[in-house]
Amino acid sequence: MSELITLYTAKICPWAHRVELALKESGLEYQRFEVDLQNKPEWYAPQVNPASKVPAIAYGGPPTSPSSPSPLSTKLAESYVLLEFIADISKSVALLPPTPVARAQARFFIETFTSKFAAPWYASLHRGEDPAAAVLPAIDALQTLLPPEGGFAAGAQYTIADAAVTPFLARASVALKHDLGAYPAGEGKAVWETLQNDDKYKRFRQYYADVSSRENFKQTFDEDYILEVFTKLFAESRK
Amino acid sequence: MSELITLYTAKICPWAHRVELALKESGLEYQRFEVDLQNKPEWYAPQVNPASKVPAIAYGGPPTSPSSPSPLSTKLAESYVLLEFIADISKSVALLPPTPVARAQARFFIETFTSKFAAPWYASLHRGEDPAAAVLPAIDALQTLLPPEGGFAAGAQYTIADAAVTPFLARASVALKHDLGAYPAGEGKAVWETLQNDDKYKRFRQYYADVSSRENFKQTFDEDYILEVFTKLFAESRK
Repeated sequence: MSELITLYTAKICPWAHRVELALKESGLEYQRFEVDLQNKPEWYAPQVNPASKVPAIAYGGPPTSPSSPSPLSTKLAESYVLLEFIADISKSVALLPPTPVARAQARFFIETFTSKFAAPWYASLHRGEDPAAAVLPAIDALQTLLPPEGGFAAGAQYTIADAAVTPFLARASVALKHDLGAYPAGEGKAVWETLQNDDKYKRFRQYYADVSSRENFKQTFDEDYILEVFTKLFAESRK
Repeated sequence: MSELITLYTAKICPWAHRVELALKESGLEYQRFEVDLQNKPEWYAPQVNPASKVPAIAYGGPPTSPSSPSPLSTKLAESYVLLEFIADISKSVALLPPTPVARAQARFFIETFTSKFAAPWYASLHRGEDPAAAVLPAIDALQTLLPPEGGFAAGAQYTIADAAVTPFLARASVALKHDLGAYPAGEGKAVWETLQNDDKYKRFRQYYADVSSRENFKQTFDEDYILEVFTKLFAESRK
């Protein structure tokens, strides 16, 4: 029998969304607990994740309600660690490619994303320190790593590399399309138009169409909710 | 027959040292090429690693000299990606623990190190922006994750988690012991004394003794060389 999996997550959080995408793709059964990040339950940090962040997974132990985590389950945290963990326990669906070299390429894709995308994009989105176009070099870098003939980040098969980047691309799309962020007005829409129309981003567009039309994404991404939260969040942030 | 492995590395670099520790531990044969970081060969970036950094691995392809890399070998980079890759291809020695939960714990150890150690320590060592004691909370965090009964980061077995942190701990030890760094004079020695004598760091001391007495470390760490480089490097850096 499979071990019980409880995912502690929050719809807004791209790091947590990574893990839910991998879980959905794996076909593993899991319980989902939505953590209110503005008002976390008091048991969450002491009983699930001392860092008090999402995502976290409680694995194994006796059946319990997510809000009464068992001390007998193992608590695991950090989105990248959880992606590898889900790939590791996924039996019927492979979430890493079939060879060591291709697995290294999948991990390199995640590493490239982590080192190039997050810092400039959040500096722009949340603080207006970078122009919205600061996201484009990161998208170039990812695009360069995509197999030119099509397919996913590390080949024909959907892997944790795709689950790792999709949540960020999806949230950035919502922000840019609606020009929401701390960057100057108009910049988001301009970057969005570039990504939609410039031939340079053709391969990236196909990739994003592939990952965002997938069932695991459609079942876990609530665009209306993200738009609503971003609209409130960025209402006052533009300088 | 095994594929040819060429490691491009530099003795001073802790990121590169991670990979050499894992390779030595694995027992895999490899060629080693020392890259002069101050004067990199012109073929290095175009033919091995476009990011022009160490470590990198050339894997497979026909036998060649490291300074004439074959276009038929696969070039891989980024120290963490390479640690996982070596664990993946290591046949006779397991470099990750035997269960998914323990593997997640090994990766969590690396993640904790990466997020807590590097930034404060280098801000102190190279720029004097943090006191030398800024390294202590990171050491606390690692110590908390060590199995209390002894052994390595993720249990009885030496894993890539140990290879990932040891190079940084070893270089920090050299700097602190000799009070070398951009932090104020005396602070390094004081932190070193704390780590040597305070009961609070007993478990950490045992861990560092275990990883630094291991053959893979003794064969790859040249303390005199590191001391010489640090002595020159930090001669002018103290404010």
